[in-house]
Amino acid sequence: MNIENYLKDWKKKVDDKLNEHLPSEEEYPPLLHKAMRYSVLAGGKRIRAILMITTYSLSGGKHFDEIMPVSSAIEFIHSYSLIHDDLPAMDNDDYRRGILSSHKKFGEDIAILAGDALFSHAFYMISHSNIRADLKEETLRVLTRAIGNKGIIGGQIEDVISDSGEKNPKLLRYIHSHKTASFFSAVCEIGTILADANKEKISASRKGGLLIGMAFQIQDDILDVEGKKEEMGKEVKKDKNKLTYPSVYGIDFSRKIAKKYSMLALKQLNVISGNDKIFEDLLDFLLGRRN
Amino acid sequence: MNIENYLKDWKKKVDDKLNEHLPSEEEYPPLLHKAMRYSVLAGGKRIRAILMITTYSLSGGKHFDEIMPVSSAIEFIHSYSLIHDDLPAMDNDDYRRGILSSHKKFGEDIAILAGDALFSHAFYMISHSNIRADLKEETLRVLTRAIGNKGIIGGQIEDVISDSGEKNPKLLRYIHSHKTASFFSAVCEIGTILADANKEKISASRKGGLLIGMAFQIQDDILDVEGKKEEMGKEVKKDKNKLTYPSVYGIDFSRKIAKKYSMLALKQLNVISGNDKIFEDLLDFLLGRRN
Repeated sequence: MNIENYLKDWKKKVDDKLNEHLPSEEEYPPLLHKAMRYSVLAGGKRIRAILMITTYSLSGGKHFDEIMPVSSAIEFIHSYSLIHDDLPAMDNDDYRRGILSSHKKFGEDIAILAGDALFSHAFYMISHSNIRADLKEETLRVLTRAIGNKGIIGGQIEDVISDSGEKNPKLLRYIHSHKTASFFSAVCEIGTILADANKEKISASRKGGLLIGMAFQIQDDILDVEGKKEEMGKEVKKDKNKLTYPSVYGIDFSRKIAKKYSMLALKQLNVISGNDKIFEDLLDFLLGRRN
Repeated sequence: MNIENYLKDWKKKVDDKLNEHLPSEEEYPPLLHKAMRYSVLAGGKRIRAILMITTYSLSGGKHFDEIMPVSSAIEFIHSYSLIHDDLPAMDNDDYRRGILSSHKKFGEDIAILAGDALFSHAFYMISHSNIRADLKEETLRVLTRAIGNKGIIGGQIEDVISDSGEKNPKLLRYIHSHKTASFFSAVCEIGTILADANKEKISASRKGGLLIGMAFQIQDDILDVEGKKEEMGKEVKKDKNKLTYPSVYGIDFSRKIAKKYSMLALKQLNVISGNDKIFEDLLDFLLGRRN
């Protein structure tokens, strides 16, 4: 199948489940639910959810209905982290996915709480799912390692206090591998865990996911320099005071590094995909994207 | 045992575990870990953790070492919610537990992330604990119901947008039962779940915990009016534009309502405590407290 169609089809299914798994605006408290729905349903490629579904499917997983609460949880966590990232005290972004960011739309207090509620709801979804207890436990172990102080938030804090004048490649790798790649690694690993795959596949998905995440974040850095606001749905050139791949290595070499990470990712992911070209196409798509 | 000593002894044990379960400032990223430790270790009565331990113990639980990761998780969640609550966009409190609040000490960006990291770390602790898989699963179910959009955060959002001019008793009950009592209910219930108690005890702890939480929050409202800054460790009279029991019912009648909730709580909790006077003493202590 053509990769654009593959992504489009799964995005539709993920979106439908997100809509179903989010509390309704008719339910109390309506303003909170409105703010939760606003950010999650604003769009997004759903790459993280689709990566999980892809490693699940390639590892022989067949019970998609059972695992969709986890794909929703992944996107809730992604949304929460974007809402908090956009806050004035953080990146101070007024737009996200082409519409006002949560705090511009609802106010800072509601945005903080909507982020918190999505974070909490992610764990609600997984806890209340019908996944086999041991697989659920392992999913939560991998997930909580990836999103906290030794994962996403560890990377974010160093990102917040970093300074583009520093040109510190080791710190740059720390930031990117933690704030972005650790979560990519976890979602790929979780797909294989949920499919009850063997250790070799689980390990390959963990490593491959990390490498996809690095390639993805470098492309994100490049798009902040080269992208157009209309295509990106948010302000560009926001990272000029941040430590990024273009600020340390320049655009051309950053592109080469992203390509290199992508090739290393494929080497790992071949263990799962065999002759299926899906990850190759997916990585080409991710590195060729305009937003 | 005298209730003050009981609370003091358990607070010491809970504090020791919190210290052990928090990431070290020597570990990377140090600033995040410093901010996480700062807020959690600033003190606090550890009432929520001790309630969980008490219902566990009274229900026959004996493996305290096994459940302490959950008591830490409970206090991490409490701390995260205080850090976010104190932010300028929320209650804008400069002091907490007698020291500068997180954002005054570290800046808003770090405070937001430290709160997020503690929230995440709570789930990390539970996921990585050695608790029996089915009890862990049930613990997470109860916990995630209590702290999200239908629990703490639901109450907080209505608290944030509430207005003392409104005098709406139904909304007031919603706010207090959600922002505070739902978590008290969950921690009491989790203690009995972890002890593998029967349904009757689990149900009694859930209901009793909710009622303790209501009494506790009304006393909190009263202390905001009558308490002294030096004893409270934070600014008082901060709630004057909020919907509180004193603003709706006056101080004297609020005290009566708190006493009523406390008596109703005891009725439930007798199912667990039998002839043990512990909850009676604990409630007397909570309603007599000065901070």
